[in-house]
Amino acid sequence: MTFRVTVLTLYPEMFPGPLGLSIAGRALREERWTLETVQIRDFATDRHRSVDDTPAGGGAGMVLRADVLAAAVDSVADTRPVLAMTPRGAPLTQARVRALAAGEGATILCGRFEGFDERLFEARAIEPVSIGDYVLSGGEMGALVLLDACVRLLPGVMGAASSGDEESFESGLLEYPQYTRPVEWEGRTIPEVLRSGDHARIAAWRKQMAETDTRLRRPDLWERHGGAAGLSPSGARRDKDGPR
Amino acid sequence: MTFRVTVLTLYPEMFPGPLGLSIAGRALREERWTLETVQIRDFATDRHRSVDDTPAGGGAGMVLRADVLAAAVDSVADTRPVLAMTPRGAPLTQARVRALAAGEGATILCGRFEGFDERLFEARAIEPVSIGDYVLSGGEMGALVLLDACVRLLPGVMGAASSGDEESFESGLLEYPQYTRPVEWEGRTIPEVLRSGDHARIAAWRKQMAETDTRLRRPDLWERHGGAAGLSPSGARRDKDGPR
Repeated sequence: MTFRVTVLTLYPEMFPGPLGLSIAGRALREERWTLETVQIRDFATDRHRSVDDTPAGGGAGMVLRADVLAAAVDSVADTRPVLAMTPRGAPLTQARVRALAAGEGATILCGRFEGFDERLFEARAIEPVSIGDYVLSGGEMGALVLLDACVRLLPGVMGAASSGDEESFESGLLEYPQYTRPVEWEGRTIPEVLRSGDHARIAAWRKQMAETDTRLRRPDLWERHGGAAGLSPSGARRDKDGPR
Repeated sequence: MTFRVTVLTLYPEMFPGPLGLSIAGRALREERWTLETVQIRDFATDRHRSVDDTPAGGGAGMVLRADVLAAAVDSVADTRPVLAMTPRGAPLTQARVRALAAGEGATILCGRFEGFDERLFEARAIEPVSIGDYVLSGGEMGALVLLDACVRLLPGVMGAASSGDEESFESGLLEYPQYTRPVEWEGRTIPEVLRSGDHARIAAWRKQMAETDTRLRRPDLWERHGGAAGLSPSGARRDKDGPR
């Protein structure tokens, strides 16, 4: 089944952009996914082709009109989920990416300016999604990120050797640190355990490093993971298992 | 002062990509920022121009070599911060974006495959940065996002009317919901307060909505914000101020 993507945007010329190169670009040429863009402005109804207007109640910038945006969304209505890229959305996670990649595709709505008229979300089944806690000039960059994350997980795209199972976030942890040749570089050597050939020791070391790095660098992820040994976030044994 | 960016990548053809259009593209043509790419492969030393090798200790994929990457980073050494895009990095925040945008620019290192040899981060002053808790096919998409977020904040890029002061995350909260004409759409009307012309009431309503939406949608942000009235995250009065 081909993963079908429709992007609703004021800047269709931004697509496929970087998704036309490297892994995603090859997958696009192999038709493992398809990409269609829809120009939101084509759904404007006045002679100026307006898609936005000033914010009700005052303030800087422009707000995307609910009527025009809803017409654009309705034009591609099918069984695929509809996502809107906005900093007010739910943070994108690898679990959501994996669920989307297992589906038939997505319709992605790209915001601009001060965002969407909120009634759009009340009147249509649209999932607001944020790629992170920062503000972009538009949702297009978010759509590119979301699609890159999904496409690499499609069957046949990465190849069996890199299933992604051991990557960051798949286990709820950061990935362990990696090393490669040369064995010695600027007086720094690859950790001995990784050169031991002892697969059990290597696996144990990597698990411990993933846990330690997550605990030190991302206490928020560590809490959600439930800490060591699957303890609940409030697990009483947390302190005993602190940074070594 | 022009914001100067150097991107170290295996895919220089991905730049400026979407940053060549819209707001960032106009700012690039106006020389409010400059963008230079460096091909990492040019710093390979063997006849195959290898930039990666298999992971020490085994496992899928390839790891970027510390020696080759360090040579690439050293080639652009100046006073600008060096950031590496990696899911093991610190989550990008609007505060970090704002600090970077206030500086002279950045050098951005884009990872690929299974990531960087960890010794690179021990041997060089490189700040690992993550744009979110998901895995991309490479750091290029992260670099595009980081740059888009920075460039829109450069002087003169957005214009005085949209300083970004009231945007999501600037106050540690999500932005309040926005509305625009038509006043009535599909039986839904713009909230009365926004049509009242009473600026104090509008400001109070927006503040309350920003707080309510942040608390309901992003309890993690709300905790960091300190909750209503700047209470500490463990503030005992939290429950009284729950969702209305």
